Amino acid sequence: MTPTITAFEQSPDRGQGLARDMRVRWALEEVGQPYDVRLLSFEAMKEPAHLARHPFGQIPTYEEGDLILFESGAILLHIAQRHPGLLPDDADARARAIGWMFAALNTMEPPIFERTMAIVVESDRAWHAERLPMLEDRIHVRLNQLSVRLGDADWLDGAFSAGDLLMVTVLRRLGSSTLLDAYPNLSAYVARGEARPAYRRAFDAQRAVFMATSASR
Amino acid sequence: MTPTITAFEQSPDRGQGLARDMRVRWALEEVGQPYDVRLLSFEAMKEPAHLARHPFGQIPTYEEGDLILFESGAILLHIAQRHPGLLPDDADARARAIGWMFAALNTMEPPIFERTMAIVVESDRAWHAERLPMLEDRIHVRLNQLSVRLGDADWLDGAFSAGDLLMVTVLRRLGSSTLLDAYPNLSAYVARGEARPAYRRAFDAQRAVFMATSASR
Repeated sequence: MTPTITAFEQSPDRGQGLARDMRVRWALEEVGQPYDVRLLSFEAMKEPAHLARHPFGQIPTYEEGDLILFESGAILLHIAQRHPGLLPDDADARARAIGWMFAALNTMEPPIFERTMAIVVESDRAWHAERLPMLEDRIHVRLNQLSVRLGDADWLDGAFSAGDLLMVTVLRRLGSSTLLDAYPNLSAYVARGEARPAYRRAFDAQRAVFMATSASR
Repeated sequence: MTPTITAFEQSPDRGQGLARDMRVRWALEEVGQPYDVRLLSFEAMKEPAHLARHPFGQIPTYEEGDLILFESGAILLHIAQRHPGLLPDDADARARAIGWMFAALNTMEPPIFERTMAIVVESDRAWHAERLPMLEDRIHVRLNQLSVRLGDADWLDGAFSAGDLLMVTVLRRLGSSTLLDAYPNLSAYVARGEARPAYRRAFDAQRAVFMATSASR
């Protein structure tokens, strides 16, 4: 059964692959699972039909027969548990890889997301110039710890996993800043993720949506 | 094999059960799994022995034989997958319950945690009084959506699950504010979680640590 995901009709990132459907597209490409996409306008995301799928009115969602899922982390875990390629077979290694999924979403992403929020929502406030470095200090604490743990390994714990996939998408949110520059091993890690053929296919697919919907305006 | 978790020797919440070991204690109590606790000072959390367990130098961790896990969400999922009682047996319902775990940690917790951070880190800043309502507006958007989804149900999706366990611990972070007052069904939901015997045992266990270490100072 071909699953259907939802994505922005007009992604606010202008096709940079920072929206959260990118994670799901990438995972589906890694495991070789074709998928359909239902594009949503910002208005449609707040309508009852979509809120029934996603109580917080966001993208992505994942529909497969009677199953409807939201939260990109949960969708990734569902895909990774049903297809080989995104989680190790060994039970302990599998639990650790899932640990990195949660670390990406619950330890690394929040301070990185707060910086984006501050730039979007507070950049016209008097305090923004003073507060931004405080936010970036919080991010540096986490980046430094992550860099130490990664060391000179290719991936966070053995072979590439869904944990790496999520972590790369989280670190990519810093791409327009210079915050990653102090951590060459993290920059190389992100580049390694972006060089995967499955990443490239997913990136091109979401970019094609942006190009098509921009051209038709 | 009895697992060992780590917890604060001196919890900054003064025994209110807001530290993240509470989630793991509660889950272990729900499934009837005894556990040992290793208490850590703030200094010990930053030492190499603990950083080897937890690259971000936090609590809780979970050790069981050769397996070492960090991230409370990953620890909960590990416990829930190995014991009955925290996830439904039906595959689709199980995926949805895991979805609520991610929703608690990645959609509800970040804005709630940011409010706590602002109060701890920025309350002496000139902008705090102006910025706090902005943070609380973000929280209200999410609380309203969660309240609509919960409706008059006891739990988020059928029987009590690890998703409810995490969501209740996240909403409890608002306990010292009046933010939940506008959502009687969410207040009742939190109270329902706190009334579970397993919650009570876990709460008492973490509180006993705080009382003992406070008395010995």
